[in-house]
Amino acid sequence: MADDAPTRYEQLAHDMSQAIREGLLKAGDRLPSVRDTCQRRGVSPSTVFQAYGLLEARGVIEARPRSGYYVRAQKRPLRATPLAAVPRPEATEVAVSALAFEILESTRDPKVVPLGSAFPAPHLFPLDELTRAGARAMRRIRPEQITTALTVGDEGLRQALRRRYALQGVPLAADELVITNGAMEALNLCLQAVTRPGDIVVVESPTFYASLQALERLGLRAVEVATDPREGVVLGDLQRLLDQHEVAACWFMPNLQNPLGSLMPTPAKRALVELLASKGVPLIEDDVYGELYADVRRPPPAKAFDQAGHVLHCASFSKCLAPGYRVGWAAAGRYAQQVLRLKMMTSLATSIPPQLAIADYLAQGSYDRHLRQLRAALSAEQQRARRLIERYFPAGTRVTLAAGGYFLWLELPGDIDALELHHRAMSVGISTAPGVLFSADRRFTHHLRLNVGHPGDARVDPAIRTLGQLASAMR
Amino acid sequence: MADDAPTRYEQLAHDMSQAIREGLLKAGDRLPSVRDTCQRRGVSPSTVFQAYGLLEARGVIEARPRSGYYVRAQKRPLRATPLAAVPRPEATEVAVSALAFEILESTRDPKVVPLGSAFPAPHLFPLDELTRAGARAMRRIRPEQITTALTVGDEGLRQALRRRYALQGVPLAADELVITNGAMEALNLCLQAVTRPGDIVVVESPTFYASLQALERLGLRAVEVATDPREGVVLGDLQRLLDQHEVAACWFMPNLQNPLGSLMPTPAKRALVELLASKGVPLIEDDVYGELYADVRRPPPAKAFDQAGHVLHCASFSKCLAPGYRVGWAAAGRYAQQVLRLKMMTSLATSIPPQLAIADYLAQGSYDRHLRQLRAALSAEQQRARRLIERYFPAGTRVTLAAGGYFLWLELPGDIDALELHHRAMSVGISTAPGVLFSADRRFTHHLRLNVGHPGDARVDPAIRTLGQLASAMR
Repeated sequence: MADDAPTRYEQLAHDMSQAIREGLLKAGDRLPSVRDTCQRRGVSPSTVFQAYGLLEARGVIEARPRSGYYVRAQKRPLRATPLAAVPRPEATEVAVSALAFEILESTRDPKVVPLGSAFPAPHLFPLDELTRAGARAMRRIRPEQITTALTVGDEGLRQALRRRYALQGVPLAADELVITNGAMEALNLCLQAVTRPGDIVVVESPTFYASLQALERLGLRAVEVATDPREGVVLGDLQRLLDQHEVAACWFMPNLQNPLGSLMPTPAKRALVELLASKGVPLIEDDVYGELYADVRRPPPAKAFDQAGHVLHCASFSKCLAPGYRVGWAAAGRYAQQVLRLKMMTSLATSIPPQLAIADYLAQGSYDRHLRQLRAALSAEQQRARRLIERYFPAGTRVTLAAGGYFLWLELPGDIDALELHHRAMSVGISTAPGVLFSADRRFTHHLRLNVGHPGDARVDPAIRTLGQLASAMR
Repeated sequence: MADDAPTRYEQLAHDMSQAIREGLLKAGDRLPSVRDTCQRRGVSPSTVFQAYGLLEARGVIEARPRSGYYVRAQKRPLRATPLAAVPRPEATEVAVSALAFEILESTRDPKVVPLGSAFPAPHLFPLDELTRAGARAMRRIRPEQITTALTVGDEGLRQALRRRYALQGVPLAADELVITNGAMEALNLCLQAVTRPGDIVVVESPTFYASLQALERLGLRAVEVATDPREGVVLGDLQRLLDQHEVAACWFMPNLQNPLGSLMPTPAKRALVELLASKGVPLIEDDVYGELYADVRRPPPAKAFDQAGHVLHCASFSKCLAPGYRVGWAAAGRYAQQVLRLKMMTSLATSIPPQLAIADYLAQGSYDRHLRQLRAALSAEQQRARRLIERYFPAGTRVTLAAGGYFLWLELPGDIDALELHHRAMSVGISTAPGVLFSADRRFTHHLRLNVGHPGDARVDPAIRTLGQLASAMR
């Protein structure tokens, strides 16, 4: 978007990290000197220093005294195990709901260190500015606006969202946008709009537990597709599933998948949309973490390639601006009318004051600056946490190199039961999200999702150390 | 509740209107003189004048110059037609949704006179005070509160609600209260918590179209129970239905039914709860209009008699305090845990800022004063509208004497098609809610629900006149 165009140093950092990702620069390689880079790129030394500083904060490179900058060794990322497509047995599903519920409950206790939480630290968000924006907006509205917006949502907010989509190059039909009670409602409405009880829905593996709960609630069957910890859905595997099964929909997170933090490369997103369009299968795209990418450009959603209106793009402000406001939306393509009607039937409308607060905040023009700060803070914290995990967790632990966001996904050595570790951690006041939550058949028994989105919380470092020690003791 | 105890004049007005309802004073009868009443009741003349003034404003009595106060003739209220129990045909249902959707859309246009709207005029609500309360509350909270409240809702608001229930003598279990996105979400969650697809649910006849939509969405079958325009659900008919069918749940509005405005007498509510408890059938009680009674005491909900936890009581602030805030709740008895889990799965949580705004507003102590003013305004407007309808609608039109709220239900002479009237009215900028919306099988073809909750809107009187003329022209 206009005021989110990368600065010179961000562009430089982006190019450098791309070179590292593509293997042109390997772990231990020395980066070009500041002087060389200045000459080659025609930029000032301060630009180069800023770029290298950014990459250092992200843990991609490290400065060695009197020697220069070097590419950091990254712990070998977790590789995906291709998974058989297993329809979900009913009994397992209910157990997932109950456990997810228990874990969400446990994170409500402020005394528990929230490594199992779904939300980053609330102090990362401009809550005071939002409050002021809300009061300002509410004083300004005509009383009629409070009821006339109704199901579809506040027009000012919808316009602001349409503008952001347009600036990201995502085409949106005139009326496909519906404001919802957070992305959770958007996803549930979209799922219901494109399925009938008994239908098969493809989900990632591991997948966000809420998608399993939604499937359970609507009487749908899950088939899991192999999902790479770096690049997301494995398209070859998806193609096989589409040939084998009559699939009603896919529910994927191409940007910063929960829990893996994977990011589908842009060409893969395009191929995904084309593959599904050719089969007429709708894609429910959960993009709630898209703004939290650790790179300098927002990765496009799969929706960017949606020619046929088969992509139902769902997102919200809950993870990037306004937690607790429960303002999300769906851009539901050709299914927009059904989604709108389901919204009317299930909750009628989304609360107006939070919508007005966010619309007013967006109009102030400081959203993108906030996002930069948030991304930098989360990125630095993720690197810090990875180092602590490398240090304190037992040998053989593997951890994802998330492309952004605030989740890390750990694979513990095979003899450590992660659910047992979760219970032991809870008994000393630390929550986690054990891997069994993230699959229909409790496959990820020695995996954990850790929330590392609490920079400045002094309890986090000791908690990660304790968790590592508890895990080591279970070997 | 404590500061809602009736004043002397309200108590006197209550006793007088009860005497009129019970037939001790009939239409045309002269009321006791002010002096007599002072002596008999031991009150001051000003108390009597205030009481008579209140009854006059409500259209129950009228002052005749130099003669005294007389009981007004009430247009004969519409009587219920006992209805056969007809399972809902699928095709009809979809048509109801589409029409309901069209009508809700039409009321969004500020140029259309909103006689078909579901909401009263927004200027009746203390929107500025709520905005101030919201800003105050948001400045005061700890950032953690924004995420820790999560699914169950803000604890301060839940406490305030529990206090109001207690003051109304309604027993509530410790954890049965869940805050929702308006009553609409509460009702949908409750319905899903107690049913499986294919189940039979008893609804009133006529019934609120949202209940039909909810049944449709969840794949449930509707059976309609005879409903008296004054006293609500006919218990004898309900008993027969319960004997004939395996009923999974009832969805009723014992207080100020939409669209009839009927009020189940307190003993009937008790009998209803006992009947359903004896069969183990849950009652979903929609009580969104309960605070808008036209009498001086709030009628108790059926929930007041719920010993066994079978009543799922749903209500909201949308119709009595804060339209557009979408803050409602369910006190779901023994089903509370299921409702909470469904809430977590479908929308995760209710927006926090509106909850805090309402909780703060309630703590200021002016809610009951606001409710008195609102009730008086709606009551006077209802009487005014009834007189206009009597004057302008064709002979043979019958209209309900609603026990409160802001809806009137009209039965037009049998040769007038209400849906056609609705279309003609829309073409001249007046919305209505045609009767076909309010039944699974489009039974109420010459009925209309009119919203008469827009006092001070200069367009209402001409619109009612125009509507009456359009109806007359269709004879």
